[in-house]
Amino acid sequence: MANAVVSQSGGPTGVINASLVGVITEAIKHKEIDNLYGAVHAVSGIVKEDFIDLKKLSVETLRRLALSPSSALGSSRDKPDEEYCKKILDVFRKYDVEYFYYIGGNDSANTCYIINNMAEKVGYQFRAFHVPKTVDNDLLVTDHCPGYGTAAKFVACALIGDDLDNRALPGIKIDVIMGRHAGFLTAASVLGKQRDDDGPHLVYVPERPITMDKFLADVEAVYKKLGRCVVAVSEGICDTDHVTWTEKIAQTGEKDAHGNVQLSGTGALADYLAAQVKTKLKVKRVRADTFGYLQRSFAGLQSEVDRQEAEMCGRMAVQYSMKYDNGSVAMKRTGNGKNYGVEYFRTELANVAEKTKSLPDEFINAEGNGITQAFVEYALPLVGQLPQTEYLGNYPRIKKK
Amino acid sequence: MANAVVSQSGGPTGVINASLVGVITEAIKHKEIDNLYGAVHAVSGIVKEDFIDLKKLSVETLRRLALSPSSALGSSRDKPDEEYCKKILDVFRKYDVEYFYYIGGNDSANTCYIINNMAEKVGYQFRAFHVPKTVDNDLLVTDHCPGYGTAAKFVACALIGDDLDNRALPGIKIDVIMGRHAGFLTAASVLGKQRDDDGPHLVYVPERPITMDKFLADVEAVYKKLGRCVVAVSEGICDTDHVTWTEKIAQTGEKDAHGNVQLSGTGALADYLAAQVKTKLKVKRVRADTFGYLQRSFAGLQSEVDRQEAEMCGRMAVQYSMKYDNGSVAMKRTGNGKNYGVEYFRTELANVAEKTKSLPDEFINAEGNGITQAFVEYALPLVGQLPQTEYLGNYPRIKKK
Repeated sequence: MANAVVSQSGGPTGVINASLVGVITEAIKHKEIDNLYGAVHAVSGIVKEDFIDLKKLSVETLRRLALSPSSALGSSRDKPDEEYCKKILDVFRKYDVEYFYYIGGNDSANTCYIINNMAEKVGYQFRAFHVPKTVDNDLLVTDHCPGYGTAAKFVACALIGDDLDNRALPGIKIDVIMGRHAGFLTAASVLGKQRDDDGPHLVYVPERPITMDKFLADVEAVYKKLGRCVVAVSEGICDTDHVTWTEKIAQTGEKDAHGNVQLSGTGALADYLAAQVKTKLKVKRVRADTFGYLQRSFAGLQSEVDRQEAEMCGRMAVQYSMKYDNGSVAMKRTGNGKNYGVEYFRTELANVAEKTKSLPDEFINAEGNGITQAFVEYALPLVGQLPQTEYLGNYPRIKKK
Repeated sequence: MANAVVSQSGGPTGVINASLVGVITEAIKHKEIDNLYGAVHAVSGIVKEDFIDLKKLSVETLRRLALSPSSALGSSRDKPDEEYCKKILDVFRKYDVEYFYYIGGNDSANTCYIINNMAEKVGYQFRAFHVPKTVDNDLLVTDHCPGYGTAAKFVACALIGDDLDNRALPGIKIDVIMGRHAGFLTAASVLGKQRDDDGPHLVYVPERPITMDKFLADVEAVYKKLGRCVVAVSEGICDTDHVTWTEKIAQTGEKDAHGNVQLSGTGALADYLAAQVKTKLKVKRVRADTFGYLQRSFAGLQSEVDRQEAEMCGRMAVQYSMKYDNGSVAMKRTGNGKNYGVEYFRTELANVAEKTKSLPDEFINAEGNGITQAFVEYALPLVGQLPQTEYLGNYPRIKKK
């Protein structure tokens, strides 16, 4: 009999608590695990010995927990070095912790990896398992990441509505979406498109550098054709010299009140792009929104599939820890479309730690300003059914008298 | 037998199409109405004679339409003067239009009023009815406005998630919410609060001018107490000299790239407030989001009550037009809480035209930085059931070994 610790790290997602519920409900089934401690605020809670007894939670609490966005145990941006990891291991030994489940991104996988190696060196019996989560969908090995489907659903629903809004009051609308390095979330902006002329009409991801001139020419072309244009832009969009536009704005005199470059939680990029379009294309109605933190923590908008998979990833981590010394949980797609399904497998921590994935080439159109049908087929099953809408402005007119 | 025209004006809402469906389904029942024309892009579509035959829409289309956000007939920001209204009346006479249903805000009520008076003067048999809509909830006479409950639901769900996000990664978070003159939508930020220490911890509405010093002192006090702070700010917030902060930002050298004052669709106010907090309170983690257009057009997040009432307002407009010459549809609350209900009544166009309502004093706390329980009791029935969440960070800790 030994104890287990579970914790959540990095940016919250809409289903990271479902993974926590998966760990809890599975851990209860295994007699090898005596106590299950939840560390508050990730690694910082471990070193402070700030633990909650998770086996005491009621069924009703667990039900609500699985539906709650954000990290219910709190999170941390600490990136533990050797010294930090040594402290963690000391606490684990003090509390007879043999099992460690860490729900997070590639940094969390790396933390698991470091601590596991440390334990091995000192001959301490220890099993570290990484449970994947990220709204960015940029972890290696796994087909996709828990947390992505729900964030993608938010972005898709936002664009469905925003495009209809832009139809009602035509002009140019720019939406800035999360994703510093990977364009998966920005690409999700196309998932709710129903009609041929539905927006977003242009999509820019960090994987395809673009000049301001090309951006403006693209927007102008759509605007001339449709009399309106909806653009989805990743916060990590960069110029052809690979410097992000946000950094460039900060370098000009046109930077916003902040003074420092911070991609999420500022409207600087959106406002800059809107100003460029307004000034250079002489279009009157130009608006820009930055989706910000809403897209990762909005309450009551989970993707069902995403929640179920997140929970299963948590469960599988516990199951694997009964057989293996360490690992990261990954998903393999077994079918698509109506036959969509996944199977879970264990991969080495080193395969996931510190690395990231980009939006594959086949998901981006040749011109670098749009998303392909291949992406829609990849991402739609993760999001589930999206709202079907009506716009009457395309309907036939009655003949003038 | 005569014809009818229906149209949608002003900013879209999440249920303005439900009102349209109400007009259509009710109009079909009345043999007095021969054709029902939908004017595309509001008054501008009327003068262009740009009409759709709405009786041809299928039941399935109407079902989807009622669930679709934004204005399916398109909208317009045109504010018709006498000359414009004369053109409208000319088109109505050409098309034998005796019934006019105009779904919109107080400007739309005014347009109805002008055209109706004009028709009366020239002896043209005509019935103009206004169907209320606005996310701002600022129309007179009616207890509340269709469109508000759905936008309020978005704001409440956003804040539920955002507060949990702020718990996970503590700091100061500022959310800028729509409402130039009325604080109803910003006030909705408190509707999802469950726990004593849930955010938003501070709420600022346009009805209560505030100095930057007081704002900063408030934020600092909460931050010192809780180690975090979530703030909801109305875009129309103003200083004690009654100049909006947005205008003030534009007047300083710190204005954003736009150069011009535009409250919605820019992150300038949010970024400015974040910069002030960061600089003056020396807090490291400060973030700000501007909810922008998402809050009025997000797809798939209607309040059921709001949609049903919006549809009924459309139906009632048609019913009243069988008995009366003109009017605006309004709601009176017949019960609250579990007994919530409304009854519909007709009011004079002049009572609604061009006027607006503010958030009543009893809905704002004495200090002018929070929202009262009286508001929650008023607004919650309009929004419906909100997600119940779990946060474990408040749970008891296990004793340190």
